[in-house]
Amino acid sequence: MHHNGAVGARRDDDREFTVTETVRLFDAENPLELRSGASLKEVDVAYETWGSLNNDRSNAVFICHALTGDAHAAGWRKGAKRAGWWDTLIGPGKPVDTTKWFVVCANLLGGCRGTTGPSSVNPASGEPYGLDFPLLDMSDFVTVHRALGHHLGVDRWAVLIGGSLGGMQVLQWTLDHPEDADNAIVLAGSSRLTAQNIAFSAVGRQAIMRDSGFRGGRFLSEGTSPKKGLAVARMMAHITYLSEEAFSEKFGRAAQSGELTPNFGVDFAVESYLNHQGEAFQSRFDALSYLYLTRVMDYFDPFAAPDALKALASNAVKFLVMSFDSDWRFSTEHSRRIVRHLEGARVPTSFREIRSPWGHDSFLLSIPDYHDTITAFLARAADEMGQR
Amino acid sequence: MHHNGAVGARRDDDREFTVTETVRLFDAENPLELRSGASLKEVDVAYETWGSLNNDRSNAVFICHALTGDAHAAGWRKGAKRAGWWDTLIGPGKPVDTTKWFVVCANLLGGCRGTTGPSSVNPASGEPYGLDFPLLDMSDFVTVHRALGHHLGVDRWAVLIGGSLGGMQVLQWTLDHPEDADNAIVLAGSSRLTAQNIAFSAVGRQAIMRDSGFRGGRFLSEGTSPKKGLAVARMMAHITYLSEEAFSEKFGRAAQSGELTPNFGVDFAVESYLNHQGEAFQSRFDALSYLYLTRVMDYFDPFAAPDALKALASNAVKFLVMSFDSDWRFSTEHSRRIVRHLEGARVPTSFREIRSPWGHDSFLLSIPDYHDTITAFLARAADEMGQR
Repeated sequence: MHHNGAVGARRDDDREFTVTETVRLFDAENPLELRSGASLKEVDVAYETWGSLNNDRSNAVFICHALTGDAHAAGWRKGAKRAGWWDTLIGPGKPVDTTKWFVVCANLLGGCRGTTGPSSVNPASGEPYGLDFPLLDMSDFVTVHRALGHHLGVDRWAVLIGGSLGGMQVLQWTLDHPEDADNAIVLAGSSRLTAQNIAFSAVGRQAIMRDSGFRGGRFLSEGTSPKKGLAVARMMAHITYLSEEAFSEKFGRAAQSGELTPNFGVDFAVESYLNHQGEAFQSRFDALSYLYLTRVMDYFDPFAAPDALKALASNAVKFLVMSFDSDWRFSTEHSRRIVRHLEGARVPTSFREIRSPWGHDSFLLSIPDYHDTITAFLARAADEMGQR
Repeated sequence: MHHNGAVGARRDDDREFTVTETVRLFDAENPLELRSGASLKEVDVAYETWGSLNNDRSNAVFICHALTGDAHAAGWRKGAKRAGWWDTLIGPGKPVDTTKWFVVCANLLGGCRGTTGPSSVNPASGEPYGLDFPLLDMSDFVTVHRALGHHLGVDRWAVLIGGSLGGMQVLQWTLDHPEDADNAIVLAGSSRLTAQNIAFSAVGRQAIMRDSGFRGGRFLSEGTSPKKGLAVARMMAHITYLSEEAFSEKFGRAAQSGELTPNFGVDFAVESYLNHQGEAFQSRFDALSYLYLTRVMDYFDPFAAPDALKALASNAVKFLVMSFDSDWRFSTEHSRRIVRHLEGARVPTSFREIRSPWGHDSFLLSIPDYHDTITAFLARAADEMGQR
């Protein structure tokens, strides 16, 4: 048995807490070769695990996080005020049942939550990389996370799951290495951003890069911060994560407190919500990672490659593709496009559009129809576990 | 005959050019009393006119401009590269035919295109107002523009026309002073912003106010400028002015030139478009005006007032309310709400939803069904001219 609870969790006062482990997976002798041709000589990867890997190593599930996620997908950290970002989905008795599955989640390459990224120190200079960090490709995320699998003793994943950017990574993984997975779940994902999608990302990046604290990306060395621009980028992005209906339901035109009293500060409740999202984000996320990760999404267009589906078509990865009907960031049309390509290559694919009023963020919520569909898909996956 | 072409136009080399006139309508002896209770002791108003007022003064049309518009709605200025912002609609032989109608357009109070606003000099201090400029209400726009009418000899307008914020002003004008107008055209307007609408405005304002050049609104006195934040606000707003389909049609995923070459600069054509919109806006618009005018829209909620429709219901203003089916900034639901309130008060109202793929900006475009509807409405208005 590999990596039981002792690796990814600590027990304290009868409660099990998760901890994020970090491992150096690439170094000077074994550098990470990127899709662009560039390489990185030091790559640390932060990850968490839940549950235990079974003897034939057939119950491993990899969680691909979204743009601003991290390795802490589920459970509690000591002293934390909230659980991991996908705690609704992952845990004992939950749709991704950690009493059955060995679940792994790792921070993305280029991120800022423990895995090497543009704010890490460049071993060549002793300074943070800044914009000297190489541009990344979705395949680079896959390269790093499959190396983590190998480190953990997992060569093959029963299930890859991801939402939004995470779903895009799942798709890339199965295209690059279909032999790595038995099943793949792509939630609220996309195989190709629209001009409007790119526009939102571009304006977010402009807010960061035009901040006087950005200093051409050298803000860490210079002791400044583009945190105001980062907050604006986050506030704008948040508008796209909820449906218009959800904004109306949650906030309407209510005042933040008492009656509306016209001024340029925070008066409407929706302004207070956005400001809070912006402020909270400043303290937990890095402006450079925001640039690098959004740019990977902009350029992602895997089906444009000739023979993109050739390897996947001759393997038997089973797909579940899901969208949410009120999601206007990655509308159902994005998911349909993925399904059309997969089905065109005879890849077994289930598609579900879930009714939800909450927009893109729906994949993070406990929506019965959504969770039931995941549960059923995983029940079948469990039946077939290790058969392939 | 009042104010013929000689007021609003100059002939040169056989071409008639428009010029913007400025008039002081309020001064220390006759201050502008605002809805908030504050007052302004110097208010200049910039305006243009087209066509000639007839003898019984019954052919006057007032054009209410949108958020970033100005008095130059139609025709050409000498040396200009483009015509006025609504030149598709207004001119000889056009739907608003300036051979028949006497047309007036004026810059909004709080604006930055000739009418007094927050960047004007505060006579009390000798410095630009900045955030000492009082907050405005939609009714204040009406007060100033009806004063301009009186100055021009127009007590009653055959037609008030406006799109977006302009449509909101038309609605306010008819609620405040229904005796001022025979007909009212409200295009792509709203009687109450949604939480999502407010969210977009709020983030745009945050981009401006968090710019290090903003200096608490004193940037003119201090020789700085929040132009980067203003550009970001404009870029974001532009995303909402077009439909997703329009973005895909116009730009798709095309490279700005040649092939996509991954970087953080301008690579996709849509990025180039947005950057251009941001840069062009910096040079023609003022960050403070952007704050003041968007805030008026946020708080606009005229039907919330008790008896809001009482005066209008006992007058005979005829309404044409139009929306565009791909407009997601002010969707058709906004127009339907206006229509429900008007019809509930027995106000004669025609409603049309126009099919257009272009989104909110459709009201600025030559869409046959849209223009034909305006033409027909104005033909009936011309038949009834001066009858009331």
